[in-house]
Amino acid sequence: MLNKIEIFDSTLRDGAQAEGISFSVEDKIKIVRALDTLGISYIEAGNPGSNPKDLEFFLRMKKEKLQHTKLTAFGSTKRPHIAVEKDENVASLLEADTPVVAIFGKTWDFHVTDIIKTSLEENLQMIRETIAYFKKQGKEVVFDAEHFFDGYKSNAPYAMETLKAAKKGGADWLVLCETNGGAFPDEVYDITKEVVEKLAVKVGIHCHNDGGMAVANTIMAVEAGATQVQGTYIGFGERCGNVNLSTVIANLQLKRKKHCIIEGQMPNLTPTARLIAEISNINMNEREPYIGNSAFAHKGGMHIDGVVKSPKSFEHINPTKIGNKRRVLMSEVSGKSTVLSKIQKIDPSIKKNSPETQKIIDRLKELEHQGYQFEGAESTFELIIRKHLGKYKPFFQLKNYKIIGENYADSENTSSALVKIHVDGKDEMTVAEGVGPVHALDKALRKALETFYPQLKTVYLRDYKVRVLDTTTATSAKVRVLIESTDGCNLWTTVGVSTDIIEASWIALVDSIEYKLIKDIEEKVRAYI
Amino acid sequence: MLNKIEIFDSTLRDGAQAEGISFSVEDKIKIVRALDTLGISYIEAGNPGSNPKDLEFFLRMKKEKLQHTKLTAFGSTKRPHIAVEKDENVASLLEADTPVVAIFGKTWDFHVTDIIKTSLEENLQMIRETIAYFKKQGKEVVFDAEHFFDGYKSNAPYAMETLKAAKKGGADWLVLCETNGGAFPDEVYDITKEVVEKLAVKVGIHCHNDGGMAVANTIMAVEAGATQVQGTYIGFGERCGNVNLSTVIANLQLKRKKHCIIEGQMPNLTPTARLIAEISNINMNEREPYIGNSAFAHKGGMHIDGVVKSPKSFEHINPTKIGNKRRVLMSEVSGKSTVLSKIQKIDPSIKKNSPETQKIIDRLKELEHQGYQFEGAESTFELIIRKHLGKYKPFFQLKNYKIIGENYADSENTSSALVKIHVDGKDEMTVAEGVGPVHALDKALRKALETFYPQLKTVYLRDYKVRVLDTTTATSAKVRVLIESTDGCNLWTTVGVSTDIIEASWIALVDSIEYKLIKDIEEKVRAYI
Repeated sequence: MLNKIEIFDSTLRDGAQAEGISFSVEDKIKIVRALDTLGISYIEAGNPGSNPKDLEFFLRMKKEKLQHTKLTAFGSTKRPHIAVEKDENVASLLEADTPVVAIFGKTWDFHVTDIIKTSLEENLQMIRETIAYFKKQGKEVVFDAEHFFDGYKSNAPYAMETLKAAKKGGADWLVLCETNGGAFPDEVYDITKEVVEKLAVKVGIHCHNDGGMAVANTIMAVEAGATQVQGTYIGFGERCGNVNLSTVIANLQLKRKKHCIIEGQMPNLTPTARLIAEISNINMNEREPYIGNSAFAHKGGMHIDGVVKSPKSFEHINPTKIGNKRRVLMSEVSGKSTVLSKIQKIDPSIKKNSPETQKIIDRLKELEHQGYQFEGAESTFELIIRKHLGKYKPFFQLKNYKIIGENYADSENTSSALVKIHVDGKDEMTVAEGVGPVHALDKALRKALETFYPQLKTVYLRDYKVRVLDTTTATSAKVRVLIESTDGCNLWTTVGVSTDIIEASWIALVDSIEYKLIKDIEEKVRAYI
Repeated sequence: MLNKIEIFDSTLRDGAQAEGISFSVEDKIKIVRALDTLGISYIEAGNPGSNPKDLEFFLRMKKEKLQHTKLTAFGSTKRPHIAVEKDENVASLLEADTPVVAIFGKTWDFHVTDIIKTSLEENLQMIRETIAYFKKQGKEVVFDAEHFFDGYKSNAPYAMETLKAAKKGGADWLVLCETNGGAFPDEVYDITKEVVEKLAVKVGIHCHNDGGMAVANTIMAVEAGATQVQGTYIGFGERCGNVNLSTVIANLQLKRKKHCIIEGQMPNLTPTARLIAEISNINMNEREPYIGNSAFAHKGGMHIDGVVKSPKSFEHINPTKIGNKRRVLMSEVSGKSTVLSKIQKIDPSIKKNSPETQKIIDRLKELEHQGYQFEGAESTFELIIRKHLGKYKPFFQLKNYKIIGENYADSENTSSALVKIHVDGKDEMTVAEGVGPVHALDKALRKALETFYPQLKTVYLRDYKVRVLDTTTATSAKVRVLIESTDGCNLWTTVGVSTDIIEASWIALVDSIEYKLIKDIEEKVRAYI
C-alpha cells in the first residue's frame, strides 16, 4: 500500500490559470473522461466560488459516472471574522456537490499579515473551522497549504501551526504547496520529511516550475513520504506552470515502482497528452520528456548508430511503454542504415545492397544539396521512397496555378489564387481569396480536390514554417517550407524547397495531401485483411 | 574561488543535434559573440571531424577576438587499434586550432563491448593516449565521460577506471555526462560526490532532460562539488534537450551565491535567450523558467491582487534582475525606462513624463500586440520613434504594387512585380521579374527609387527571415519578416508583420530603405558641422 501514489490533476483549475488557456464546459467534460480512463485519483475541476462557468460544469457533471476518479471542487478558507456557514465561497463549494473539496489556506506569516491582512491567530481559526465544517458535511477534505515552503523558511513554527490547525479540523490530506516555484530539491525533501515525521497524517505535494525543478521537487517530496502528487497533466499553469504530471507518473511508475495510474493505461500516457493539448488548443512543447514528439528522436550520427545496435544505448526507457515512438531523424549526419530502416518499413524485401537503396540515397543527397531537410518531414521522405519503389500513383495532375497580390495605398491588401487540376479525366478549376498568397493557394487547391476526395475535409494545417536557406542572397535565396498537417488523429509533416516561397509551399501542400490519401488507402487495405 | 562555476555552453554542438536546428556559419558566429558578452567560460562550437561546415567555422573564428570565453572543439577519443596521430578525427580537432578540446570517451562497460565493440582495456588506453596527445600539444582538455551515471550503476569500478585513465592522461576536467537523461537527483548527487572525493580533480556535470530533471540534477551535482556545468543556453539538444543553462545560471547566481557569468550581464539573460531563439529560428517555449514571456505573467485573480500588494507574494525573484518583466494579463504594464533611453538617443530633451514618451509606449504596445518584436529590429523601432517626434519625412509615396506568380505544369515558375511610386511630384512605375515574389518586389522598388536616390545602389539585403507567429492557424497565421540590410559599411535590421507575407516583406523593405536615406542625411549634416 505504501507504494500507491494518489495523482491529483488540476489541469482544469490551476491549468486554466495559464496564459492562453480557456476551457468551455464541453472541453472540461472531455478532459475529465480522458483522465478518468487513465485512473487518475482526483480531478480538481474548478473554483465554483470564483467562476460561474465552473459551477455550471459541476452541475453538468452530476450526470456523469466516473469510474476511477473523485471529482474535487477548489476554494479558499472562509474569510476573516465571518461565520463559516455565512461565507458565499464556502456555500458555492457545497453547491458543487463533489465528494472531495480542496481548501487552500495561508501558511506564510507575511501573506497573513500583508496580503489577507488579518491576525496570525484568526488565520489558524479560519483554517480549522472551514475544514471542520466540510468534514461535518461528509466531505473528503484536502488542505492546500499555500506557500508552505516559503512560509516554513520565514517562520517554521507558525507554518507548522497552520498544518496542525488543519489536522485538528479533520483534514484528510495536508498538501504542501510550493506556490512560487522557486525552491530547491534538497529544501523540499527536508521540509516534507519534517512534516511527515512530526504530524503523522497523509501528506501531498504541489509544485510549480519557476526554477525549472518542479519534477525533481515532487519526486524528492515523494521520497520524503508524500503520497499525493498535485499537478497538471501536461504542465501548464500560472506563470511557468505546475509540475507536469505525465513526467511524474512515468518517472515514478516506471523507475521507482510506485503505482500512480492503472498499469494497463501506461501506453495511453502519450495519446492522452496529445488529446489534452488538442482540446486546450495549444501546441505541445515537443521536447517534453516522455510524451514529446522529439523525446525519442535521434539525430547525431553516433546516437543513431548506437540505437540501431541497441536501443538502451541512447534511450532511458522503451518509448512504447508510454505510447510514444522512436524516430530516427534524417540529416547530414545519418548513414545508410537509417535510410534502409525507413525503406524497409514500406518494402521489407529491399536489402542494403539492393539497387533501389543506392538510388534512394543518391536522390536524398541530391535533394539535401538543393536545401531539403527530411528531419521533421518524414512524410515527404516516405513519398520519395514510394516513388522510387513504384508504390505511388498521383492523385491529381496540376495544370497550372496563378496567384495575384495587390496593394493600393490606403486600402487592404488582397491575395487570390487560381488553380486548375486534372483528376479522373476531368478538369477542375477553382479560385479562392486568402489572407496571403499561400493561404489563398491552399484554399483553392482544397476546394478543387474535396470534390473528388471528401476525406480531405477533416485535414487542416497545424503549423507552417519558413526558413530562408542561403541568407547571403537574401530575398532571392532559397526558402524551405515545412507544413505540419493533422486530421485530428495523426500528425504529419512535409517539406518543399524553391527560390519562390509560393512554389515551395505548393510542393509541401501537395505532399501533405497525397500522404493523407495514401494513408487512407492503406488503412482500408488493413481493415480488409 | 570555490564559488566560481564555469559555464560550458554547447548550443552550437549538442544543441545543433536537436530536431529542427541547423546553423549556418554566420549564425554560429553571432551566437558566439552573444555568449562571449555574457561571460560564458567555454563555448563548444562544433565537431570538426564529423562535419566539414564546422571546420569552416573554426577557421573563420581565428579572426574573431573573444573577450571572456574559450572556444572549444568537440570530438571523440581515437579509434581502437590505431596510433593517435594517425586518427583523422584527432587530426581535424587539431586543425580547428582552439585553446580547448572536449574529448568524449566511453565509461559504460556495455557501450565499450556492444557499441564500439572493443575490449575494456583498449578503451582505457584510448582515453589515456588521446588526452595525453592533446596535452602534449598544449591544449586544455575536457574529458566528457559519456554515460557516466549509467556506467557507474552498471559497473562502478570500471566507470571509475575510465576517469582515472583520463586523469592519468592529464585531463584538466572530468565531466560526468548523464547522457541518456533518465537519472534522479539523489543518484546524481551521490555519484558525483563519490567522484569529487575519490579523484581530487576538477569535476563537471552534463545533463539531459529525458526525465524532466536536468536542472535539478545539475544543481545537485554542483552541491556535491562539481564546478563546471555543461548545457545549452535555452535547452535544446538531442531528444528532450540538454539542461537549460539560462535556468541553471539564474538558480545558481541569484539563489546559491555562485558566480557563473559577469554580474552586470544578469539583466541580459532574457534578451540573449530571445536572440539565440531568433537566430536558431525556433519559437521559444514561453513557459520556460526565468526567460519565458509567461514566466512572470499573472492571471489568477488572487495572484494579481497579491503581486499588486507585494510582488514577492507570487514571484520567486524580481524579473528585472534577469531582464524579464512582470506581466499582468489583461492590464499590461511595460518598462518605460528602456523605451526612454532609446527615445533620448534621438532627442535627449524628451523626459520620462513628456507626453511623447507615453504616446510612443502606447504605439509600441499596440505593435507588439500585432506581433511586432523590436529586439532584433532596432532600425524599425528608431523609425517609429522618429515618426512620433516629427523627425521623419517620407522619401516616397506608394501608389500601388501588384505581384503575379504563375506556374504551368512542366515549365518554370515565374514571379513578377509592378510598383508605382510618387516622388517629388513625379510618378514612377517599374516592373521586374524575380526568383520569387518578394525578390521581384524588391527589384522593382529599387529600380523605381534609384532614379531619385542613386546611393541606394550600394545597398543590398543580407538576410531575410520569416517567422510564422500564431502557428495554430497555419497558412492564415500572421508572419513576421526580418530583413537585414547593408551598404558595405553599416548593417541594419527592419521588421514587418502581416498575415500576408508579401505585405510583411514590403513593410520591412520600405523601412530598410528609409533608414538608409535618413542615416545618409544625418551623416551629411554631421560633416557640415
